[in-house]
Amino acid sequence: MTNQKSTDLTTKQAKELLSAADNILILTHANPDGDTAGSSAALCMILRKIGKTAFIHNNSTITEKYIPFVEEFLVPQDFTPSYIVAVDIADTALLSPDASHLADSIDLCIDHHRSNKLYAKNTLLDAGSSACGMIIFSLCHEFNIELTAEIALPLYLAISTDTGCFRYSNTTPETLRVAADLLETNINFTEINERFFETKSRSRFALESNLFEAVSYFDNNTIAFSVISLQMVDELGLIEDDTDNISSFLRTIDGVDVGASFRERSNNLWKISVRTSGADNASKICSALGGGGHLRAAGCTFTGNIEDAFEALLNSIYTERKKHD
Amino acid sequence: MTNQKSTDLTTKQAKELLSAADNILILTHANPDGDTAGSSAALCMILRKIGKTAFIHNNSTITEKYIPFVEEFLVPQDFTPSYIVAVDIADTALLSPDASHLADSIDLCIDHHRSNKLYAKNTLLDAGSSACGMIIFSLCHEFNIELTAEIALPLYLAISTDTGCFRYSNTTPETLRVAADLLETNINFTEINERFFETKSRSRFALESNLFEAVSYFDNNTIAFSVISLQMVDELGLIEDDTDNISSFLRTIDGVDVGASFRERSNNLWKISVRTSGADNASKICSALGGGGHLRAAGCTFTGNIEDAFEALLNSIYTERKKHD
Repeated sequence: MTNQKSTDLTTKQAKELLSAADNILILTHANPDGDTAGSSAALCMILRKIGKTAFIHNNSTITEKYIPFVEEFLVPQDFTPSYIVAVDIADTALLSPDASHLADSIDLCIDHHRSNKLYAKNTLLDAGSSACGMIIFSLCHEFNIELTAEIALPLYLAISTDTGCFRYSNTTPETLRVAADLLETNINFTEINERFFETKSRSRFALESNLFEAVSYFDNNTIAFSVISLQMVDELGLIEDDTDNISSFLRTIDGVDVGASFRERSNNLWKISVRTSGADNASKICSALGGGGHLRAAGCTFTGNIEDAFEALLNSIYTERKKHD
Repeated sequence: MTNQKSTDLTTKQAKELLSAADNILILTHANPDGDTAGSSAALCMILRKIGKTAFIHNNSTITEKYIPFVEEFLVPQDFTPSYIVAVDIADTALLSPDASHLADSIDLCIDHHRSNKLYAKNTLLDAGSSACGMIIFSLCHEFNIELTAEIALPLYLAISTDTGCFRYSNTTPETLRVAADLLETNINFTEINERFFETKSRSRFALESNLFEAVSYFDNNTIAFSVISLQMVDELGLIEDDTDNISSFLRTIDGVDVGASFRERSNNLWKISVRTSGADNASKICSALGGGGHLRAAGCTFTGNIEDAFEALLNSIYTERKKHD
């Protein structure tokens, strides 16, 4: 069965597959973001509205700010799924560790990453969608389910977070029109905006202030690197959410086209996040180090000391830049 | 003539007035923001497309980042207007000093401020519009002028800046649908987003980092004050734009409902900016010190030493808070 793969499902075909299934388990990716969390919650509600038993996998890597969106749908201990759906997961390597044993059992993947590895039996892929939540919105329409505020709120979370609240280049007229439909349901979208785009913890504020002294600039100040060491995490009392998007933060400095953060996971293990603008392609820069992602946001890991990590990433950036010269 | 005022113009009536006029001068408000600058540029283009001679007043208080939007429409020295239109100007007190002599000669005001003083002969007022640019968009449609990228770009500036790039509570489904139409024209909206919402100068970054050590918190960390001294401006090489919105920056710290910055203008003269959320009313807080503004953003000045300035503002905040207890 796993060899019979369909990778060009239409929304209608995805609807048919889901209509024929039951006892559905929905998987989110490791270190859930707003898109995977919001999309899974909205999909779960839609499936329940059409009479299915559906739950969301209890992803242990979820952080506090996304929990309210999924907690009421978390799978009970005794549930045995007969159909597994992955949302916003480009590669089984991105499954949370507690779901990695399900890697070969995924029936349907709903995703918007061009880099999707097509690991599922069926894949509903729309790389033109700014968020996986856009595809779930289409599914809601396809199922002829009324768009209630209950469904619209997690979809707003999904779409707003993946587009930087409609700031990033992946925002399209369609993104804004779907967002308009979501707002029509009278969701409290400003509460989400404040929580996800306008509020920073005091420890995050401390981190940003500490970074200033420690940013390393390269190539005529167009590249900015920053290290978040385990010692900083400890001293500043940082939680996981505090260290999100430091690479975007660096990218906002005037003149910086590549922002990269090097987050120490354990001794000599670095999680590198890259954000770019202009001609720099984050996905290509990270691919050279075994990672991947999108044009403007990508990531990889590096094993070695920090000097070598800097050098490896710089080499990859310079290699890409030379191609454009 | 000035006593015959019409304050409930429809878009159609405004179109008729503009169609009958010629040699039109468009006024922007003092210290132009994206809405007044973008709206005036788009209106000027629309008027020229219907065959009118139209220019934008050469507002001396404009800052660098808005100049590119208006410069090609600036009025020549020898132009004598026969019809004057004010855009996004709630009160003649908000005219730039070099336009204040025109206060009694304004034929048409196009605005979205509920507080509009109805000073013009005719006023097209839509307080439900998130930006004046939304009204100009409707006028473009009313005139049956094709929405080109040239017109859409300044309208995008107007609407995105007045809604905090669609984050603020004045964003409506209609705002997002209009923005979708603007994006359809293939404008480079991400360039505007980067310039106005995502880029900070290195000196601004330095300022924010320096603030961390120097924020004073009060009332259970719900109030955050910060001082920007002349010495800091000097040492960090700050320009005027760098010190914008420091009060909003403070307000984004988790738990802070009142953020206030105290910017030293000269010895013992402080410009205080206040940003609030929740039950705190910025306008009322500043009124007690002779200032004013909006519910969420207001300002005042204070003469005296910084300790007295802190005490005066704190007293005003506490007085307001007691009213709600």
